Amino acid sequence: MGARSYKLYELAELVGGTVDGDGQTLIRGVAGIREAQPGEITFIANSKYEEFLDVTRASAVITSQGRSAQKPVIRIDNPYYAYLQVLNLFAADVAVRYPRGVHESAVVDAGASLGANVAVGPLCHVAKGARIGDNTTLVAGVFVGEAVQIGRDCLIYPNVTMREGTAVGDRVILQPGVVLGADGFGYAKNGSTHHKVPQIGRVVIEDDVEIGANSCVDRATTGETRIRRGSKIDNLVQVAHNVVMGEHCVVAAQVGISGSTEIGTGVVIGGQAGIGGHITIGERAMLAGQAGVTKDVPANTAVSGYPAREHSLAKRLAAHVALLPEFFRRVKELERRLREVEEEASRK
Amino acid sequence: MGARSYKLYELAELVGGTVDGDGQTLIRGVAGIREAQPGEITFIANSKYEEFLDVTRASAVITSQGRSAQKPVIRIDNPYYAYLQVLNLFAADVAVRYPRGVHESAVVDAGASLGANVAVGPLCHVAKGARIGDNTTLVAGVFVGEAVQIGRDCLIYPNVTMREGTAVGDRVILQPGVVLGADGFGYAKNGSTHHKVPQIGRVVIEDDVEIGANSCVDRATTGETRIRRGSKIDNLVQVAHNVVMGEHCVVAAQVGISGSTEIGTGVVIGGQAGIGGHITIGERAMLAGQAGVTKDVPANTAVSGYPAREHSLAKRLAAHVALLPEFFRRVKELERRLREVEEEASRK
Amino acid sequence: MGARSYKLYELAELVGGTVDGDGQTLIRGVAGIREAQPGEITFIANSKYEEFLDVTRASAVITSQGRSAQKPVIRIDNPYYAYLQVLNLFAADVAVRYPRGVHESAVVDAGASLGANVAVGPLCHVAKGARIGDNTTLVAGVFVGEAVQIGRDCLIYPNVTMREGTAVGDRVILQPGVVLGADGFGYAKNGSTHHKVPQIGRVVIEDDVEIGANSCVDRATTGETRIRRGSKIDNLVQVAHNVVMGEHCVVAAQVGISGSTEIGTGVVIGGQAGIGGHITIGERAMLAGQAGVTKDVPANTAVSGYPAREHSLAKRLAAHVALLPEFFRRVKELERRLREVEEEASRK
Repeated sequence: MGARSYKLYELAELVGGTVDGDGQTLIRGVAGIREAQPGEITFIANSKYEEFLDVTRASAVITSQGRSAQKPVIRIDNPYYAYLQVLNLFAADVAVRYPRGVHESAVVDAGASLGANVAVGPLCHVAKGARIGDNTTLVAGVFVGEAVQIGRDCLIYPNVTMREGTAVGDRVILQPGVVLGADGFGYAKNGSTHHKVPQIGRVVIEDDVEIGANSCVDRATTGETRIRRGSKIDNLVQVAHNVVMGEHCVVAAQVGISGSTEIGTGVVIGGQAGIGGHITIGERAMLAGQAGVTKDVPANTAVSGYPAREHSLAKRLAAHVALLPEFFRRVKELERRLREVEEEASRK
Repeated sequence: MGARSYKLYELAELVGGTVDGDGQTLIRGVAGIREAQPGEITFIANSKYEEFLDVTRASAVITSQGRSAQKPVIRIDNPYYAYLQVLNLFAADVAVRYPRGVHESAVVDAGASLGANVAVGPLCHVAKGARIGDNTTLVAGVFVGEAVQIGRDCLIYPNVTMREGTAVGDRVILQPGVVLGADGFGYAKNGSTHHKVPQIGRVVIEDDVEIGANSCVDRATTGETRIRRGSKIDNLVQVAHNVVMGEHCVVAAQVGISGSTEIGTGVVIGGQAGIGGHITIGERAMLAGQAGVTKDVPANTAVSGYPAREHSLAKRLAAHVALLPEFFRRVKELERRLREVEEEASRK
Repeated sequence: MGARSYKLYELAELVGGTVDGDGQTLIRGVAGIREAQPGEITFIANSKYEEFLDVTRASAVITSQGRSAQKPVIRIDNPYYAYLQVLNLFAADVAVRYPRGVHESAVVDAGASLGANVAVGPLCHVAKGARIGDNTTLVAGVFVGEAVQIGRDCLIYPNVTMREGTAVGDRVILQPGVVLGADGFGYAKNGSTHHKVPQIGRVVIEDDVEIGANSCVDRATTGETRIRRGSKIDNLVQVAHNVVMGEHCVVAAQVGISGSTEIGTGVVIGGQAGIGGHITIGERAMLAGQAGVTKDVPANTAVSGYPAREHSLAKRLAAHVALLPEFFRRVKELERRLREVEEEASRK
């Protein structure tokens, strides 16, 4: 990590917490509770790791009000968010500085427009009519198709493809291998042959969205596929044509969202969940990992399983399934006892 | 959209339908039923959207014989296919024209052979012995390995990788990030170590196949992995070594097909379904989304669930599971009543 | 295939097996049992293919001691491993020879360090501070970020991205489109906004690991995401931040492993399985395809289903579910008979 160091009370001031213990403790870095070394600060938010609180080698811990620790601590209501702020401090020291300007190996069409302080790294291609906002970085090997618009302060990692007409807002981060604007999957069957439905819509990615490595957002058949501001999408996710995802959604890896489905604001989707097409997911719904969602989900509802059901019901049904062997025995026992009763009765 | 416009009767003639209403209505574009604006034509095929028929702002609608509408309509048996034809008309205006010839930044081996009117875009690499047919386009950043053969009229999007020996037919479309010919996943265990089984076969993609963004088709161990003509594969799909997929299959996003499995003609596979290795899927079978297929599926059979079962059975079992809480209550009630009968009998 | 040929007894000596039949049989190539032609050798390890043993056109077969065949055979305990050795012999003839040295279209920073006999193919970018070991090949379009370390004898296929600080051991194979070191998926919520947690750790890939096409291994938040020596990962797999995977694991396509999970030595994971975060999978555990693992799995345990349960229990429960229609009938029958008994009793 970087060479800078901070005193614990300085970090507490930064995050708005209070020091419990020696505020002069010197902090040179940040690490997880199990890996931390002397000189480093760590945090605890997940109670699963509480057992490590007394054995961590960290010199200080960020934690909530309730927990006791034998180390100097910064106490604060949201320890994970405080940790993030401290991490940002040290991250600045190790962040890669991408050289500004257009690398000589990049191919930028004369009809493209670049803002101030843009970096177009090695072996990028920016096609005609593309517009790239101030301070945006294309790291390397990025493809920016015709008439693509990218906002300011974006960070576009290697081997990203943005096909023609895609629009990307400000402060967007695209991890390596992301594909925006590939054709949606639409065919009209005539006889046994599937004829390609031209996909002439586009993709719109709003401000502050991040999309993970090798994820795909397809262009709309007509109109738009849109990811609204602040949504975060993990790796290897599929977003089909004409999907609209609301603001501040969190979508874990390998999720698949089928065509024309609408996802409300603040929806959280667990890894490998799949959502059918032409479905509406209400605001702040939570879809569990591997859930198979085949119909609308109301707002503020948690669902899980296949086919996805309200989560407490799904758990109840799963618990019943686990009891089936016992239940079957009880039914057999009933049959045996009833037979005895019947035989007894017939003997009278 | 483009500047051209058409009269409704002209579009009806194009698709072979009949006009109901004012055939002189001017159509300047195409859109979905909810987004369409005056001057645009839309369509309705999914009854889920029927409610929008009376409120759409579109100037005309393509629909089947049965439906009534307050707008001018084109009536036709297959409205989706007619819509596709109209869409094609307008799509031609917005399609990107990739410059023909070899871009100066592309690296084409002297031993490669390019047909007439080929486009090799910026930063592509075509290795020795590769052959590219007439009118085919490599958009940008495409890797064409040694002795790869690509047919005519293909469209290969950025960051596609075709490893050595891959063969691609005519009119094939590969969306960005597709990988053809990566090594199949084969290891022979000797002690605790897994030794790599060399993968010396190849991938064959027949005519009119389309493969979605970041999907992978692995080369065969020996022989071929083959996708037969007209099959359409969505994004992030995995096709393992030695799979043979029949003609006119439709494979939705994130499907995984394990090694040496054979998929018959016209099979339809829902998103995120997984198929085990060394399995045969009969013609026109339908595998539901997220199905986990562990054994052969007969022709013309729909399956779903994990482990995948014939769909109507799977639904029946799921319905029984949903009834378990009630049935558990009924069994407990039986136990109570039987105990009463037994106690009554013992008292006599 | 190559021009070389071998006599059957020579191949038997190579693999340490014994010939049964004519040891002078000439072998010019290798193929699967159904595709093999005269002059080729095949093998049988999966009993599913036994039916082809008598009809294969192969000139010889590698098989275990028990099986009889009408062909000349090489008998050996581990036929698949012997097949691999024979395949290696012929594979050497068809392997692509990548030219050594730095291709003129590659962009290698002056501050990067290349070992002896390295190949940096067309349109690769190697950033400053990167170190590449002897005999390693970057095929084409590979991105090697700042301070990335790659060992010797590695084979890195096109469009692979290794972000800053990634460390790769010796004899590692990365198939096309692999992404190492993308940011882990971490956000701290403050109000409705998700703030990005900087991911300042790195990815470590140990010796003899192979990773499949378009798979992703994310960098750690702090510390490391690590794949230990000899593990093999298939295509489109997601390995989240701070995961540690033990030695000699085998991970099939489209598996997802959530953050901070630890996978023991020799674990085998079937395709599309998903593993939650902060979980421990014991040594030599086996996770079935599509399993949804929500809690720790002990060593040497097979699990399947969602939520994943010990495999024999999961199968037993699935068998019970399949019997539900019959059991529901039996419960209804019990109700009918008990009612009769009760009515009979009340009449007395």
